[in-house]
Amino acid sequence: MKDLCAEIISVGTEILLGNITNTDARDVSVALSELGINVFWHTVVGDNAARLSEAVAVARGRADVIITTGGLGPTYDDMTKQTLSECFGLPLIFHPEQAEKIRGHFSAMGREMTDNNLAQAYLPEGCTVLENHCGTAPGCAFFAQGKHVIMMPGPPGELRMMLRTGALPYLSSLSDKVLVSHDIKLFGLSESAIDEIMGDIMKNSVNPSLAPYCATGEVRLRVTARSGDAAEAEAMTRPIIAETEKRLGQYIYGIDVDSLEQAAFLGLKKASLSLSCAESCTGGLIAERITAIPGASSVFLGGVAAYSNAVKTGLLGVKPETLERFGAVSRETAIEMAEGVRALTGSDVAVSTTGLCGPDSDGSETPVGTVYVALADASGTQCRRLFFPGDRGRCRTLAAHNAFDMIIKTMQLTEGYARE
Amino acid sequence: MKDLCAEIISVGTEILLGNITNTDARDVSVALSELGINVFWHTVVGDNAARLSEAVAVARGRADVIITTGGLGPTYDDMTKQTLSECFGLPLIFHPEQAEKIRGHFSAMGREMTDNNLAQAYLPEGCTVLENHCGTAPGCAFFAQGKHVIMMPGPPGELRMMLRTGALPYLSSLSDKVLVSHDIKLFGLSESAIDEIMGDIMKNSVNPSLAPYCATGEVRLRVTARSGDAAEAEAMTRPIIAETEKRLGQYIYGIDVDSLEQAAFLGLKKASLSLSCAESCTGGLIAERITAIPGASSVFLGGVAAYSNAVKTGLLGVKPETLERFGAVSRETAIEMAEGVRALTGSDVAVSTTGLCGPDSDGSETPVGTVYVALADASGTQCRRLFFPGDRGRCRTLAAHNAFDMIIKTMQLTEGYARE
Repeated sequence: MKDLCAEIISVGTEILLGNITNTDARDVSVALSELGINVFWHTVVGDNAARLSEAVAVARGRADVIITTGGLGPTYDDMTKQTLSECFGLPLIFHPEQAEKIRGHFSAMGREMTDNNLAQAYLPEGCTVLENHCGTAPGCAFFAQGKHVIMMPGPPGELRMMLRTGALPYLSSLSDKVLVSHDIKLFGLSESAIDEIMGDIMKNSVNPSLAPYCATGEVRLRVTARSGDAAEAEAMTRPIIAETEKRLGQYIYGIDVDSLEQAAFLGLKKASLSLSCAESCTGGLIAERITAIPGASSVFLGGVAAYSNAVKTGLLGVKPETLERFGAVSRETAIEMAEGVRALTGSDVAVSTTGLCGPDSDGSETPVGTVYVALADASGTQCRRLFFPGDRGRCRTLAAHNAFDMIIKTMQLTEGYARE
Repeated sequence: MKDLCAEIISVGTEILLGNITNTDARDVSVALSELGINVFWHTVVGDNAARLSEAVAVARGRADVIITTGGLGPTYDDMTKQTLSECFGLPLIFHPEQAEKIRGHFSAMGREMTDNNLAQAYLPEGCTVLENHCGTAPGCAFFAQGKHVIMMPGPPGELRMMLRTGALPYLSSLSDKVLVSHDIKLFGLSESAIDEIMGDIMKNSVNPSLAPYCATGEVRLRVTARSGDAAEAEAMTRPIIAETEKRLGQYIYGIDVDSLEQAAFLGLKKASLSLSCAESCTGGLIAERITAIPGASSVFLGGVAAYSNAVKTGLLGVKPETLERFGAVSRETAIEMAEGVRALTGSDVAVSTTGLCGPDSDGSETPVGTVYVALADASGTQCRRLFFPGDRGRCRTLAAHNAFDMIIKTMQLTEGYARE
């Protein structure tokens, strides 16, 4: 099969008003790139049938695959399905089983279903239905007039789930190549530092390829190989992973793991160790991130968001003299918080954070952006002093990242890094 | 002057690969909406002169204003200026003062300037130069062949600065309209129910207009009016806000507030009441969301992520008999958790969550998705039983939403809803 090229059309006036960022197009782009489908265009149009129709006409003239996001909901301004069905000359057919699902969704929520919701059960004739596991609007895929068309809902959670469970399996069946990829996850090095160290491989490798993706404070290096045979594609990724491990080993926290918290969770679980946390500046973020993982209760006992000093002393047993002498944002307080929550919950490992994430100063000499992260376990307590000025949310995220990294490093001393 | 319509063309293969999200288009959209210029299209093309040239041809056929972001840098794959100059028949002219600035930028950084950087000092003949205060590539604006064209650099920091200091002043001189908008935030009604109740207004209102935007469990209704005069535009929004309040008042949690937690925070602050929380199924999410707000410490004392039963009994004082008889996921446990954390921290108001967010059942008869949210204050303790099956993250988000909604409702009894 020849290389396919794709256009992503996102439908939604809220994107054109700048109310939301078009993350859907990014998510679809990432997924298509992995399948080896070239995305050459993103287009955004509003909830306007005439302009959508024109955009589809333009896309038909240049792309093999047209993927739409948004405009599948039940309200008057949702018109993607109607418009594309018309453009491709397919009538909309009622799907009773989808209507049942929509009804079921509402009754499970204990809510009355309004009749307009049934519009979502109409889909283009002959299409493959893409189930919506997070909402009511199903998506669909069809091949007509020489083009592959896929329509998916706009809410990012629904889109991502349908992409994984419906659109990608559909699209990968169009290609005779298998694509295998692995994510090498790194913490503690900037993208430009990684570019200096790995640039020769990133620039010169085509199949397998190595590409960096950045997130706050961390970098993902994706190794991708394409071949007619899955085992061969898998084997092609090995040398490039080995070379990355050789050059960047100490910064790798996991391969094919979702996140720092996932790697920390897997490490603790493997070692049969329990965790608790005491959070001041992160205010619950560490607990929230670890408990977002299904099955977190096998590792996580509990945590204290110790925002006020009274909670730090009363609940965690931080000494008033410590707060007085060193301040709430200090190495000493962080250490007493970690040790305090470890004693309180009886966990094997405990982490703590205290810091000044801003935007305002607390009036002391401590500069905004100062954070202490401590980890207490049977072998003692360690503490990192960090500095993340400029943005409250980023400061909190990086403080939590460091807490998970400390857990991972402690686990790695005996175990090597995490793999899903 | 007639209403202008605009197209934003973002140039960059990294967007099409999904390596970055197109925040530039969002930022330009927000700015243009505020000027009353309709953005009808976003287009993204890669670093490819032929496809960019075609995209510009399409844009010329439909838009009055064409704004490009990206592709102004010094490297071989930066071709926006060359391509657009060609499309509009304008030669590129060398600007010695820009060359001096670029030289100065490098010497200030203590770095050698390579010759390719001087390409950035060439700009379309007769254009208005838009200074780049954060980087080396200047932008430009010109009017040619009946179209307004603005080119700006891609790095988001440079773009935002140039937008504010260069592009907006240039564009505002083209329009005589002001745009005023307000966001009415609703919780507890689905988009389709809101559509049934408000559909007549949403469909028939043009100026002022009323449009719904959905997020998980909540809906934002945006009222927008455009006029030659700001006070008149403001006045035009009033009747539509009043009608929405009349029809949906009990579901409105705020106007022009960011989020449920922001409305809860403002309500507590206004009433000078403090807050604590005890979280089982939300595992820290409530604490995390409230502490993400700058100044949260004026309201929030602390919280307990009570994931294990030992933490529920030991720290929060939930009776072992209660857990035994009713289970951890029960009205009785939720109530004792809220009352327990209120006693523990001495807060005025306390909220708690306990639930089974899945994906796996706990082996009991309680169905996955069952959540109890309780609120304790001086007047007693109330509890909501809720059911959010299907997705762990969504279940946790909606449980936390309900906790904030209970706080808001409690504050509203005396105060009315929040306004920023």
